[in-house]
Formats: sequence, C-alpha cells, structure tokens
Amino acid sequence: MTLRIAVAGASGYAGGEVLRLLLGHPEVEIGALTAGGNAGTSLLAHQPHLLPLADRVLTETTAEELAGHDVVFLALPHGHSAEIAARLGEDTLVIDCGADHRLTDAKAWERWYGGTHAGSWPYGLPELPGGRDALRGARRVAVPGCYPTVSSLALAPAMGLVEPEVTVVAVSGTSGAGKSLKPHLLGSEVMGSLSAYGVGGAHRHTPEITQNLTAVAGRGVKVSFTPVLAPLPRGILATCSAPLASGTTSDEQVRAAYERAYADEPFVHLLPVGHWPTTGAVLGSNAVQLQVTVDRDLDRLVAVAAIDNLAKGTAGAAVQCMNLALGLPETTGLSSVGVAP
Amino acid sequence: MTLRIAVAGASGYAGGEVLRLLLGHPEVEIGALTAGGNAGTSLLAHQPHLLPLADRVLTETTAEELAGHDVVFLALPHGHSAEIAARLGEDTLVIDCGADHRLTDAKAWERWYGGTHAGSWPYGLPELPGGRDALRGARRVAVPGCYPTVSSLALAPAMGLVEPEVTVVAVSGTSGAGKSLKPHLLGSEVMGSLSAYGVGGAHRHTPEITQNLTAVAGRGVKVSFTPVLAPLPRGILATCSAPLASGTTSDEQVRAAYERAYADEPFVHLLPVGHWPTTGAVLGSNAVQLQVTVDRDLDRLVAVAAIDNLAKGTAGAAVQCMNLALGLPETTGLSSVGVAP
Amino acid sequence: MTLRIAVAGASGYAGGEVLRLLLGHPEVEIGALTAGGNAGTSLLAHQPHLLPLADRVLTETTAEELAGHDVVFLALPHGHSAEIAARLGEDTLVIDCGADHRLTDAKAWERWYGGTHAGSWPYGLPELPGGRDALRGARRVAVPGCYPTVSSLALAPAMGLVEPEVTVVAVSGTSGAGKSLKPHLLGSEVMGSLSAYGVGGAHRHTPEITQNLTAVAGRGVKVSFTPVLAPLPRGILATCSAPLASGTTSDEQVRAAYERAYADEPFVHLLPVGHWPTTGAVLGSNAVQLQVTVDRDLDRLVAVAAIDNLAKGTAGAAVQCMNLALGLPETTGLSSVGVAP
Amino acid sequence: MTLRIAVAGASGYAGGEVLRLLLGHPEVEIGALTAGGNAGTSLLAHQPHLLPLADRVLTETTAEELAGHDVVFLALPHGHSAEIAARLGEDTLVIDCGADHRLTDAKAWERWYGGTHAGSWPYGLPELPGGRDALRGARRVAVPGCYPTVSSLALAPAMGLVEPEVTVVAVSGTSGAGKSLKPHLLGSEVMGSLSAYGVGGAHRHTPEITQNLTAVAGRGVKVSFTPVLAPLPRGILATCSAPLASGTTSDEQVRAAYERAYADEPFVHLLPVGHWPTTGAVLGSNAVQLQVTVDRDLDRLVAVAAIDNLAKGTAGAAVQCMNLALGLPETTGLSSVGVAP
Repeated sequence: MTLRIAVAGASGYAGGEVLRLLLGHPEVEIGALTAGGNAGTSLLAHQPHLLPLADRVLTETTAEELAGHDVVFLALPHGHSAEIAARLGEDTLVIDCGADHRLTDAKAWERWYGGTHAGSWPYGLPELPGGRDALRGARRVAVPGCYPTVSSLALAPAMGLVEPEVTVVAVSGTSGAGKSLKPHLLGSEVMGSLSAYGVGGAHRHTPEITQNLTAVAGRGVKVSFTPVLAPLPRGILATCSAPLASGTTSDEQVRAAYERAYADEPFVHLLPVGHWPTTGAVLGSNAVQLQVTVDRDLDRLVAVAAIDNLAKGTAGAAVQCMNLALGLPETTGLSSVGVAP
Repeated sequence: MTLRIAVAGASGYAGGEVLRLLLGHPEVEIGALTAGGNAGTSLLAHQPHLLPLADRVLTETTAEELAGHDVVFLALPHGHSAEIAARLGEDTLVIDCGADHRLTDAKAWERWYGGTHAGSWPYGLPELPGGRDALRGARRVAVPGCYPTVSSLALAPAMGLVEPEVTVVAVSGTSGAGKSLKPHLLGSEVMGSLSAYGVGGAHRHTPEITQNLTAVAGRGVKVSFTPVLAPLPRGILATCSAPLASGTTSDEQVRAAYERAYADEPFVHLLPVGHWPTTGAVLGSNAVQLQVTVDRDLDRLVAVAAIDNLAKGTAGAAVQCMNLALGLPETTGLSSVGVAP
Repeated sequence: MTLRIAVAGASGYAGGEVLRLLLGHPEVEIGALTAGGNAGTSLLAHQPHLLPLADRVLTETTAEELAGHDVVFLALPHGHSAEIAARLGEDTLVIDCGADHRLTDAKAWERWYGGTHAGSWPYGLPELPGGRDALRGARRVAVPGCYPTVSSLALAPAMGLVEPEVTVVAVSGTSGAGKSLKPHLLGSEVMGSLSAYGVGGAHRHTPEITQNLTAVAGRGVKVSFTPVLAPLPRGILATCSAPLASGTTSDEQVRAAYERAYADEPFVHLLPVGHWPTTGAVLGSNAVQLQVTVDRDLDRLVAVAAIDNLAKGTAGAAVQCMNLALGLPETTGLSSVGVAP
Repeated sequence: MTLRIAVAGASGYAGGEVLRLLLGHPEVEIGALTAGGNAGTSLLAHQPHLLPLADRVLTETTAEELAGHDVVFLALPHGHSAEIAARLGEDTLVIDCGADHRLTDAKAWERWYGGTHAGSWPYGLPELPGGRDALRGARRVAVPGCYPTVSSLALAPAMGLVEPEVTVVAVSGTSGAGKSLKPHLLGSEVMGSLSAYGVGGAHRHTPEITQNLTAVAGRGVKVSFTPVLAPLPRGILATCSAPLASGTTSDEQVRAAYERAYADEPFVHLLPVGHWPTTGAVLGSNAVQLQVTVDRDLDRLVAVAAIDNLAKGTAGAAVQCMNLALGLPETTGLSSVGVAP
C-alpha cells in the first residue's frame, strides 16, 4: 500500500515536521504541499532540512489542491479546518494538527477560541483510556495540543489516586509558538531568558487538559496551568502535581498505577526509578519520558514528563493517528529514540 | 570610607559575581582572594571577565589570609563557614553566601544538610517583613539561597490572602549549580534540554522557603517546590501559586497587597499590569521583577517572579547586605538595570 | 555638568543599549526618547530591563523632539541621519550609531548602500592610530560598525608586519541584526544553528574594514570578510589572519607591536600569553579582548578578538565618543568588566 | 543478513551516536556495549535517549568482549585502537572513530599525537576522489575527523581552481569535545559565549585537512585552520576560502566543478544558488550542505559547508563506511533529512 499524502501548511513548523516524519515512513508518497502566504515559493526556502523535497514549490491551500489524496494533514491557523474538511471526501483521512476539533464542549470552544464550534473529531491521544478505539478506522482526527498531550499523559494514571486539583507548570521550547514574526520570539529575546505567559489560567490549552483529565477521572478536575517559554527550539517538560487522595496511598500504589497504565504503550516510557525525563532525550522522537514520585512531607504526587512538542506533541501524534486510522502498525515511521546530545 | 574586602571562593561563580559587583562599588578595595583547589593559580584563568584583577593570584582559603579585612565574603561549599568565621574578629563583617547559617531550626539543618547545625545568622533578605532591621549593624549575615529569594518575595505579600499550601516551580539557569564538573552540567547536555531535579520536595531549598513563608504567615505553610534546569547561564523564573483563602478576595485586594509590600523597595519591582517578568530583563542586575494575577476559574493566586540567581540570588544580595550592615546607602554599587537582550 | 540627552530609535537594540549605559553615567540626564513605528507606546514594552525609565512613553522621531538636548544619539535605519542632523544645531553633539557617515569614499557609499553619500563624520574608533584626535571636541561622530570595530582593532597593529591580504571570519550573536522581524532571526531558527551570510565579500561592513586597514597600512589592503551567525544574543568573535610580510618576523616582534599599540588603551586588552578571548567575558562591557599568535608552518599571523557587539560594537563606543567629544574622562560610565558566566 | 555489532566507548557521544543510527539500521543486531571507567553502569545513565537499549549494562572494553562480532566500532581516546584491533580477527570489520589510523605520515603522527604511529587504515571519506574504492571490502576503516570531513569536502572540488593556500575557520558545537569534564565545556561557560582554540595551526585536525587536500590537489596545500567553539550541542559550519588560481576563472567554472564533484553523491548537497548551509538543517542527518561563491573584488573562492559533527562528522560516516565495506547499499540506515528547527 502506498498512501498519497497532502500537507496543508507545509511551510510552518508543524507541517515541516509532518513531512520530516513522512520522509521516513515506508508506506507513503508525498503529494500536494500547500501554504497560505508562502504559496508560490520553494519549500526549501522554509524547510532547508527537507532536502529530498528540495525541488518542490508550495501551492495555495485550497480544497482542490488537497483533493485526490488518501490522507490530508492540516497544519493551519485555527478556524480554517472545518471548511476545508467539509469539501474533502468522507473517505479521505483528514488529520487536523490545529485546535478546531479538540474540544467537545461548544461553549468552551466559544469562550476560548471565539466563533462557532466546528464540532469535535476523534481525539488523537491513543494512550488515554479508551483513546485508541476511537481512532481505529477514523477518517477525521483532531491531534491534541502539545501541552495537553504531555500533561494528560503525566497525570492520567493518577486520577484515581489524587484530589481533583492539579497544578501543571510546563516549560516549552519556542517552536510551539510557530513561525510567528513577533518580537518576543526573536532569537535575541528568547536566548538567555525565561518567561511565563497565559498566566492565571489564560492559555487555550487549559480547557483541553481539563477535558482530558475530567474524562479519565469521571468527575470534574480543576487544572491550574502555567506555560513557561525557555531558550530551546523543541521540547516540553511538564511538572505536574496534586494532593494524594488520602494520606494512605503508598508509593508502591502510585508507581503500580503508572506501570499498569503504560506497560504496553510503545511510546510512553515510565523511566526506571531514579531516572528523570529530559527533553533532550526525546528530541525528534515520538517518545514520552515520564517519572513519578510522592512528596511525603505534603502527601503530594509529583509527575514529570518530557516530549518533543513538534513530534509527539504534534506531528508524531498525527502520524501515529494516521497509522491507527488506516490499520498500519501504530509505530510505523516513528521512533522512541531521540537525537541527543 | 574605603572598606577592605576579602573573598573566599573567588574562583567560583558566586565569588566571581561578588567581585564583579565590588569592582563597581565606590567604597571598597579588594584585598585577599582565596580558593581551595585553585589556590596558586591566576584569577584570570577562572574569571576572564574580571580584567581589572588580571594580575591577581589566588591564595589558600585560611583564616589567616582572610584576617585583617573589614568585610569577608564566604563563597564556600556548605559546612566550611562556621569554623572560618569563628576565627575572624567579631567586628569583621562576615557574609556567608553558603547555606550554613540560613536555617534557624537545628533539626531541619540536620535533616537536610547533615552534620551539626552551626547556628543561624541574620538572614539577608531585607525585603521580607522585618528583614531589614535584623541586618542593620549586623556582623554576620547569611545570604539566602537563590530559589528561596525569588519564591519568598513572590509569595510573601500573599500570605494573608491564600491558604497555606503553595506550589512553586522554579526554572533556573545552570550557574546555580556552580562550576561542578558533572556530566549533566556540560554544555552539550544542557543546551536544548530541560530537566527537573530534586522532585518531590527533595531540594534543600525547600525548608528555607518554608521557613520564610511560615514566618511571614505566622502559621505553618506547606511548600511544594520543584526546580527545573533550563539552557541559560543565569536567571530564575519562579511560578508560584496557592488557593485564595476564600472566594471573596478581589483582584484589587491582591494587587494592593503586593503594591503595599514593595512600594518602597528599591529592587523589587511589581510590573505594571499586563507586563510579565523575564529573566533576560534582570540579567546582571539586583532587580526582582514580579507580577501577580488571579485564576478566577480556580480562585487561585498565581505570582511569577524573575531574578538573576547570581546577582539578587547570591552576590547582589550579599553586597546589599554589606551596605545595610555597614550603614551605606542600600543600593550602593547595585542596579535594577539588566543587560538585555 | 549635567548633559541632557536624547535617543532616537529608543525601542531598538542599539538605542536600548545606549540608554542602559547612560543610566550608569554620572553626568547625564535622559530627555527625549523617540521611535518610528513604536512612537506612542511605552518604552518598557520594548526595553523591559530599563526599569528606571518604566514610565516613559516613546515620541516620534523628529528634529523638533530631538532639539534642545546637548547630545543626540541616533540609532536609526541607514539613510535617515543626515537630514535630522542638519536640523539640529551645530553645537549639539550628534552621535550616529548608523552607517550613514562612516565611509569617506562617496563611490563606495553608493555601491554598498545606494543613494547619495551624506558625507563622512569623525570616525568613532579612538584606538586606531590618530583616531582619538579627530574625536576631541567633535560635534558629529560616526560610530563604527560592529564588525569593523573588532576586525580593525584585531589587525591594525599587524599592518606593518603582514602582506596586505587579510582574511576575517567573524562569528556574531543575533542582536547585531536588530529587532527585524525576519524568519531566520526567530529563536527557533537560530538556536542550535550556525549560518554564514553576506559570503563572498557581500557584507556592507567589508568596505569599512578595508577603509580602516588601508588607512593604517598606508596602502591598499584586501579584506576577505565573512560573517557567521551563531546562537547567542550578544558578542562577536573575529578570527583574523594574514601572511607575514617576510619569513623573518619573530613572534616577539609581533607581540611587541600589539603591546605597543594598546599599552595605554583603557578598553583594548591584549591578554597574557596562553589566554584567548571569549565573548562571554566581555558581555555588557566596553572591553575588547585580544590575542595574537603566529602559525609558523605557514608564516601567518592569526589574531582573535572578542567584543560585545551592542556595547563596544555600538553603544559603548557611542558613549566613549561622547566622553571624548565633550572632554569628559573617556571611561566615564563604561567598564571593562563583563557579566559572566 | 543480520550483522552483529559491538561498540567500544558506548557511554560517550560518538558511541552513543553510532548506536542511535544503528537502532534505525535494518541489517544489524546490537551486541556488546563496552566502556572504560563507566563499565558496570547502565547505558541509560549515559544515553537517556536510547530507550530500546534501556536494559543494557556496559561491560569493560577488552578484546574478549569485542570478539565474536561482525563489526566493531571503536570510539576510544586516541592511542587505544591499534592494540585492540590487532586482537580482533582479520575478518572482523573494525571501524575506528578515533584518530589513530587517519594520518599516513608517521612523522606527522608523531608530531601531532606523540608516540608511535600505528599505521594508516583506509580513510572513511568516500566522497573524496577515489575515496570510495578504498572502502569497498575493507576490514579496517579510519573514520575522518569532523573538521577534516567538512573542510575537505568544501574545498576538494576547488583544488584545480585555486592557489594551494586555503583558510578555514570552522565553528563547532560542543559535542565535538566529547564528554570531557573540563570547566570551559560547562553549560554556564559555553552558552552565550564564543571562543577560538588551537589557534595558529595548533589543532590536530590541521595535518589531516592538509593530507586530504594535498592528495586531491596533487601538490602541497597550505592550510590555515582555526576552530571556534559556539553555543550549540551539534553542528559545524566551515567557512573556507582561497585565492583563485588566476583572475580568469569564471563563476560558472567554479560552480560546474562543484556540481561535477558531487552530482552523484547521496549525502553531499550543493545547494541551489542563493541558499546557504545552516547546521540546524543537518542536525542528526548524514548530509553535508554546501555552497560556493567567488568574491570578485579579491578573486577569491569562498565555500561554506555544514555538517552534524556527530553524524556525518563521526558516527554517520562510520555507518556509511560499514555499508560500503560490507556491500550494503551505502545509504542504509542513513538520511539526508535533518531535525529542524
């Protein structure tokens, strides 16, 4: 089987990472590469690392350009996916790396993103309880946000063990902000500096984390989420904590819950005791590195997880979902081996 | 008045930063510069930025070498300060950048550092309530740890407004770890990577933060503290949060408490609403940049503060305390202007 | 004497650095702060490290705004200085951080910058032979480019000892490119990457280096210049080499020439033998760190120099020239002590 | 065919990168992993990115441990390879990532490395003229140094067009220095700083570059080589220049020579005119990105090339040579697609 693939938003970071991964995927052939303002320019000008596609020129993102492919990856600003997807055949697998179809609650959508909710699609985080089932055979997939991916996987196994009040501080590299030409994203500004943003629950990934953990817990979970921008291109390290549900949960219970949750997962790696995740170790890979402990002075669970925001946090998840949806082995074209140091 | 100064541990980062600041201080003259294993080598080999001291050679750290100075800064591994200080005259101002005399509770000392507690000295964080009084005229000063400085100042004004259960995730540059030759501190390892350490309440600065906030609150405060290592040489950004004491505290009350606390402080800057701290903006300066907000979905206060860990976090605080102890204007030789970008 | 100062282009990196230095200068008072597109916004939004100026709002860059000051620093895109300077009084000291008045050859100006040459002003590199004289009492000063500063100082003492064919490869931090919102200057692009630009003699600083070295040598000097962009905010390290004029020049002759050239210079530091410059050691300072050696296999002189491109490379030089022009001690408000690590 | 592989020096950067690449190679099985001082410790402690080998423990580097494998990669300090190789069978493919067998001239070896020359092995740079032939069927391979790889490939096609006097300034990430615990390699020292080293022809890669270019040119080539350390983990950007042999060589001749040299090379990519190499674009890949131009003011050729020093500069070349030696398709397990941004 050779799948014909199109990528909309191919000049951006998410689109570029989808292409990087697909160039190592044995079952695909890369078709249309489209862009917005960059249509008409050479892909190489935007993605100098994608040498096998050096002769490609970007075309405009339209339903016509994207039609006729088996799989279409959308890496577009939010608000653009629904319309395009509606014009692609129902048999076409459409994988949306954007936010449009992640939230199930229309009111939440309207509050956080504005405009009309385009409806939710199967959510591309197979490692959540029941997550894989929804993706098998799907033809529409909403790829999770990067922060929700790492935070949800770090805390999901704890949901039966902690009070439903979690704190997440997630430090991220700059590529999560995309190629936006904003002063605070200039190299001169980010190197040598750390800054928090979206403080006080203002980041749009907050409702998505809440949605995931609430679903796992079966009851409302309060999520205090703060993202921090740090001087590295890729990687998110999430530090997540919550009070233990009672003083009686043993450390062994906690670890056992995590081991049970991820024993068979190809990409989520609970590290051996004493090892802690680093984002450097997952660079370019689809791996989640995870560790958990208990602060016994406070009876508080603390979990730390690392991902590459562009890989497992976006494009790797997208490819993983493609594999699942089309019945390919889930790990095809993906790896848990990072590029380090 | 010209004060004659000695610095013990002059080849390390803390000692180097004390010297950097003293080179801009109008009232001092730099005397003995001592070291441990680096004694006998040129200062320039370790501190290539201190050109005015390029002809200095490090001597051995002994009480004899340090004697005969008005002020002695100790930047030594913990456990070494008490003995040396005991052999310096009572009139000598001894400023310990290490941990030996920060904790007031001997049991806590023994638990966290091991060995016998050497007793506590006046604590060098003048911006805490009552903090300045203890330092005026002091001849022994314990400089706070870098994480306790930024965390305590970020949360102290909130102590009357929140439940006594705070969460601090503080992201730090690598110089906080000193010049230790450990593989995980190599440039190849830290650049492009993020990692948490001392997770689960295991970092030695935890009891110091707890001590400070408990003193301010007048009741026991539980502190969940996680440090994160990030790829920059200097800077700490602390994200601190706690549940509001009741749902009725208004945003205005919160801001007013912070404004009141720091209105007259020369180095603690509550930023205008809408501005958030960055560590880049405080590089090399003694400033604390601070902002606070309320997450109304959770009724949770979130404060973010940035310092330069070597400056306000160590050597700047040391010089500030020297000024206070000796009756100089508190800001002499110090600045709130960072080196950015 | 208190000088009243205006800064045009105060929202950019050069303007910000001029202000940072002036905040530590004892003889000045900061007046008008102007900008182009950023007029009307708060200075703090652009320069979060300049806390003492937190209440300032940028006004528009016009001759009227800039009038009535003793000193006007221009940090503008090239082509804008002449017109404004013409409308400021002849007694006003105008210091142009831009390129407009650096080249003495109108033809060279037209080739490299286009448009009409606005004439040359006294050149702000006092450490070149005769350089200081031209600046004493001057009321117009052209601050050198950052690459010409470091390259010219690295090679000037060698001009009598080498063939007039020099090669300069200078690696620079990103702030040299200013705050331009270009994709290749985004943090995600520059961190973890190195790139050359202006290769093949295409960079506009080439004729300026050539002009300086030709003046020192008293004959035409050919300059092969390549700049390289590296992942750090500040700093330039220039590696400069040239064939020795004959095989008979001894290492001692070479070193003696450099020692002689800079023995009395407050900011140019020929390091002790065995020490090599690093940009980290000059961060935020006005120092030039310099070392020279001979490759005896090739009979080739190799000099390496480091500066902070925003300080000695731009704003520090500007302040140094102000001091010289107005008869203040040349080092007022400036330092050779870098902020390291 | 499944090849059984051993790696000596598996806890270091070169050994880790060999393993990273082999984990993606379809024809190999990973056998013994040995180390020196780290023998007895878990591989994961040193290579946290190699999760599929998380259960491996390092054994001691001895000929016995390495025996019985089809291929043995040696990533050892120089001086250790000859003895071990002598004790491995002649049919075993031994690939030395170290320097021991690169230089053909025993006198040069003794001058630059000291001790007795262990003899030269087939040199693992297939892209040099005739380079591939020597590697087919070889059972001993000397992997080139990282700087010689990038410099030789950047200049080899020019050898008939330029005077035999070349200047190379190569900027490198820190992993080229290995995991040595030296103060100047600490993250705090390298981030935000640039420094030259081995200045004046003192770097050991100088004779290797000279050897390569002399072989290509068929006459002695003088090489002025200066390496510069920059704040990134991986990547080398080499700026190479030489005077054109006569003023008459056209730009077209120059480009044609480069096109001809690398038209059929899978890993050396002469970029389209107007594109310049960046190390970010080759991260983790075996690609060489290359561009060349002529400075017409000087009649000087300038070539710029980028590699990942650990990949094409070391481990990627090693795997490429393994493929060639054993008759596998040369690109097996290797890619020209970098991990960017």
